Amino acid sequence: MVGTWEALVAVRYLSMDPTIRGWLERDTYLPRVEEGAVIRSLGVGQVVTSRSDRYTEGDLVSGMTGWQEWTIADDDQRQLQVPPQGTDPLDAVGLFGPTGLAAYFGLLEVGRPVAGETVLVSGAAGATGSVAGQIAKHRGCRVVGTAGSDDKCRTVVEEYGFDDCINYRTEEVRSRLRDVCSDGIDVFFDNVGGDILEAALSNLARHGRIVICGAISQYDGAEPRGPRNYTQLIIRRARMEGFLVFDHADRYPQAIADLGRWAAEGIVRHHVDVVNGFEQVPAAFCRLFTGDKIGKNAVKLDRDPDRQDDRGGRRPCG
Amino acid sequence: MVGTWEALVAVRYLSMDPTIRGWLERDTYLPRVEEGAVIRSLGVGQVVTSRSDRYTEGDLVSGMTGWQEWTIADDDQRQLQVPPQGTDPLDAVGLFGPTGLAAYFGLLEVGRPVAGETVLVSGAAGATGSVAGQIAKHRGCRVVGTAGSDDKCRTVVEEYGFDDCINYRTEEVRSRLRDVCSDGIDVFFDNVGGDILEAALSNLARHGRIVICGAISQYDGAEPRGPRNYTQLIIRRARMEGFLVFDHADRYPQAIADLGRWAAEGIVRHHVDVVNGFEQVPAAFCRLFTGDKIGKNAVKLDRDPDRQDDRGGRRPCG
Repeated sequence: MVGTWEALVAVRYLSMDPTIRGWLERDTYLPRVEEGAVIRSLGVGQVVTSRSDRYTEGDLVSGMTGWQEWTIADDDQRQLQVPPQGTDPLDAVGLFGPTGLAAYFGLLEVGRPVAGETVLVSGAAGATGSVAGQIAKHRGCRVVGTAGSDDKCRTVVEEYGFDDCINYRTEEVRSRLRDVCSDGIDVFFDNVGGDILEAALSNLARHGRIVICGAISQYDGAEPRGPRNYTQLIIRRARMEGFLVFDHADRYPQAIADLGRWAAEGIVRHHVDVVNGFEQVPAAFCRLFTGDKIGKNAVKLDRDPDRQDDRGGRRPCG
Repeated sequence: MVGTWEALVAVRYLSMDPTIRGWLERDTYLPRVEEGAVIRSLGVGQVVTSRSDRYTEGDLVSGMTGWQEWTIADDDQRQLQVPPQGTDPLDAVGLFGPTGLAAYFGLLEVGRPVAGETVLVSGAAGATGSVAGQIAKHRGCRVVGTAGSDDKCRTVVEEYGFDDCINYRTEEVRSRLRDVCSDGIDVFFDNVGGDILEAALSNLARHGRIVICGAISQYDGAEPRGPRNYTQLIIRRARMEGFLVFDHADRYPQAIADLGRWAAEGIVRHHVDVVNGFEQVPAAFCRLFTGDKIGKNAVKLDRDPDRQDDRGGRRPCG
């Protein structure tokens, strides 16, 4: 079912998100993307032609553009949002996109840290983890991260202001956690799963909360693995809870206002790693799973402004 | 550290509880029971001699008597409770003991079912599961159980009033759940773990709650196993939460009053399987893990009232 078309949009940035991996493989909270269909994805673009009050020519718009250079906004399945005037398109993809919003709602609504508590964030150098940790710091928590290289750990501590960061590839996470979270972990914001989730369970504080945001260690490889020590939830009187950012859509404006203010005040820093060219999409997407990135991955669709070529999808785009 | 002794108690019933298994193996929420020490356990007895205002000779008392025939109540580590006048000693062990109270607090405080919701209970024929399911029925829920034999399933439906019961040894739990919980499971009260936990995760309703009360399938055998599909918590926006009944001690009187009233009104039925003789303790305890029981297991210490023999620990006990 496709609704009546309302605007033609030239896509400018595509957001690379691990959750797309699930959409390709099976029905999840959204139906599986069938082979041959456009791959469902967040993107940001500019309105080229509008025949609706909702959009004005030149507007920045964001939403489920899919992995394509042009998209049609309609009045049904594909409604796009118009971010506040002056929004940086990269913020629309990253900080105000699902990865930034997941940090906001996952940490504040599910994890609910209070000042003085210890918060652990896995994937701390990533698009969501880096933001979650900085919000927790802003809330007065002690914040520890895990990341996959010394370089990333340096960024996590020096750039994002975490109190500590464990390189899970070279350090023994469980014993390091015992040292750096000696009073136990009150909130674990987990993007990773696997060994790190088990290590966190073994170091949870009483009444600890584990926010299951993602499980990137589980998307590749053969058999997925559950946390073998999940009965620590009994001993710690703790909970493990999942969430989807889309459920909080009615509160996006508040979240975007908060995140925008924190970014302006330097409280939350956000890094978007941009590569150019539609042909870079597969490689940029795959880098989500190899750990070879800091912050958010996005692909810029760098059209040549002097050419119009419908087959290639090239056309001016501001 | 032992406090000043207050009463000598002749133990009358010992409660057989799976959690003791954990206490024997490792430090958990309580320190491990060292080899050679008396095994920590709930028991019910009668005060033989008192030198405290707390106890009167002849009082029924319950608490951590340990696996022994005589115990000393002291003013420190081993304080015993005096249940309301007229309490049946078997109720003090079962319905008003940790297994009944776990059903009460785990279901009502952690699972929080509301009328019309679907509640799944594993170990439905057991001491805790049978009570949890009956409370859920009383709350207006549709209640489904799992148990390990057709006999147990019959008891669960006919005696305890569950709407349905799945024999996990002969039926394919996951597909059966899809049929009998077609709108999804709102609350899963889990005593078992393993395959049943995974099957429940795959059939959770949105915003489902999994109460981790125990994981009896995980206490035996080699490597414990975590729920491989725990990321269903994300898709279902669901939570998994552990608890310990001891944390709710300040509300035991309310719970005991409710359970007692429900038992008197026939709303909650409770079965205690009693064997006689201290020498039966190991076998009765092991039957917790083979699934060969319905309801609560307790051992009666049947002293010969006509003999006093300190070595054998025999002495009259009301």
